[in-house]
Amino acid sequence: MTSLKSPKDAAVAACLSLLLEVSGNPKAGNVDREHDFRDLRFEHFLASAAGAFPAFLEVAERKVIGKGVLMAVEESMKWHKAENVHFGAFLLLIPLIASWNAGSMAEIAESARERLKRTGHEDSLSVLKAFRLCNARVVDAKELNLRDEETEREILQKRINLYEWMKMAPGENLIARELVEGYRISLEGAEFILNFENSEKAVVELYYHLLSKYPDTLIIAKMGREYAEKVKELAKKAITDDERRKLDEKLLRDDANPGTIADLTASSIYLAIAEGWRI
Amino acid sequence: MTSLKSPKDAAVAACLSLLLEVSGNPKAGNVDREHDFRDLRFEHFLASAAGAFPAFLEVAERKVIGKGVLMAVEESMKWHKAENVHFGAFLLLIPLIASWNAGSMAEIAESARERLKRTGHEDSLSVLKAFRLCNARVVDAKELNLRDEETEREILQKRINLYEWMKMAPGENLIARELVEGYRISLEGAEFILNFENSEKAVVELYYHLLSKYPDTLIIAKMGREYAEKVKELAKKAITDDERRKLDEKLLRDDANPGTIADLTASSIYLAIAEGWRI
Repeated sequence: MTSLKSPKDAAVAACLSLLLEVSGNPKAGNVDREHDFRDLRFEHFLASAAGAFPAFLEVAERKVIGKGVLMAVEESMKWHKAENVHFGAFLLLIPLIASWNAGSMAEIAESARERLKRTGHEDSLSVLKAFRLCNARVVDAKELNLRDEETEREILQKRINLYEWMKMAPGENLIARELVEGYRISLEGAEFILNFENSEKAVVELYYHLLSKYPDTLIIAKMGREYAEKVKELAKKAITDDERRKLDEKLLRDDANPGTIADLTASSIYLAIAEGWRI
Repeated sequence: MTSLKSPKDAAVAACLSLLLEVSGNPKAGNVDREHDFRDLRFEHFLASAAGAFPAFLEVAERKVIGKGVLMAVEESMKWHKAENVHFGAFLLLIPLIASWNAGSMAEIAESARERLKRTGHEDSLSVLKAFRLCNARVVDAKELNLRDEETEREILQKRINLYEWMKMAPGENLIARELVEGYRISLEGAEFILNFENSEKAVVELYYHLLSKYPDTLIIAKMGREYAEKVKELAKKAITDDERRKLDEKLLRDDANPGTIADLTASSIYLAIAEGWRI
């Protein structure tokens, strides 16, 4: 049974999932309470999460997908001076927020997928616009690359909706896979949180659980698959705080941040909160 | 000129001011990124700030004061397992949120005060209910103590509105003084932030600025005036990170947390954001 009783609840759950994700500490290679990047700081994540709230609320009320992603990027950018903060997380969360009243978390995930299938090519164009607006980084796709100038024309001509577009993404694009496959990783992550006894530690443990299981999309894009596989293996072995700190230092030194694993952590938290999990 | 263009903007500014306050690091004696109390953790502040958003939005739209404080406490408590997290901060913020469209930050503060003067005794009763709901700590007042069982009857019989009630509070109750005197400290704090060159450091520096100038209400209540004056003097001398860490350790050891200074930091940030400050 869902704990979300209204669009407001869905928006709070989404905002809070972003806040709890970024506050999970220490998260190897990503922004956390102790680590900022030069142009992307902990506070930017707070401002982006709070700033996106009105967009989340509108998505929960009006059930808009592509437009919802664009609104979230536009609204959040009014409140901080950074570029892309939450593009990947918004892409994951928006369909889940629109499906807040579908029932259990499994039903929310399934409803989100159905909703994605019913999108139009206008949704794809809105996501493309959101992407360009915030300068997000993604994996190069063979077809319909987000960076490709031809993309807009092709989406228009072939009337490619968001679901079809995501199906064209390469297999290592975990976010596209989530959207196409009905949030399998996020559901696994939510189960992990719900079953984890110590709620204080649940977010961080989930992060390492996902990091040790799925090669991160952004790391593949930046450093190649071999490096990403190595990070996965290293994460598996990093159990103690000390070992995790060492992995953190290595990734920061290499400028390799597993941003997609962080996004999936956020969508997992959202589903866990929907299912009644509280901090 | 205000940067707040809509009730949504006012709610984002309020939510974000709470998030930036708790994330200011290190804040001697209070919850920050590195310090939790046993029953009050960093994450509880995140959940409370996000959870209060719908209440903030309603306050900005409907301009309710006492009811607004009660809604903020009720809504925020649905999202975490702690007791009082933000009672003092809500009391400060709600009248400012209701006055979001008054103009400059000075006009917002003045409008909030006028609004407080026009409250009824129902507003006092709502604040009393909110206070009891979250088990907040306050200074004992000679008259109309928040802990006093007679309070409710007296508010009803004498029809004491929120402004009159706050006027009865002892002088060391900085929050009551803010409400009665038109947010003098919060305006000073906002000016401080707006004039501080390094926006990353502004919140922490403001915290120490206020801590070294005003004896904290909660510390007076708990440890006495002499101790509070001593904290003020120690804060004045704590300039380096090392000195501040030492003061932090002392206050944590003594279980003396300057919660009111933290609340005033949040209301200062709100006014600075209203005036256009961005992180």
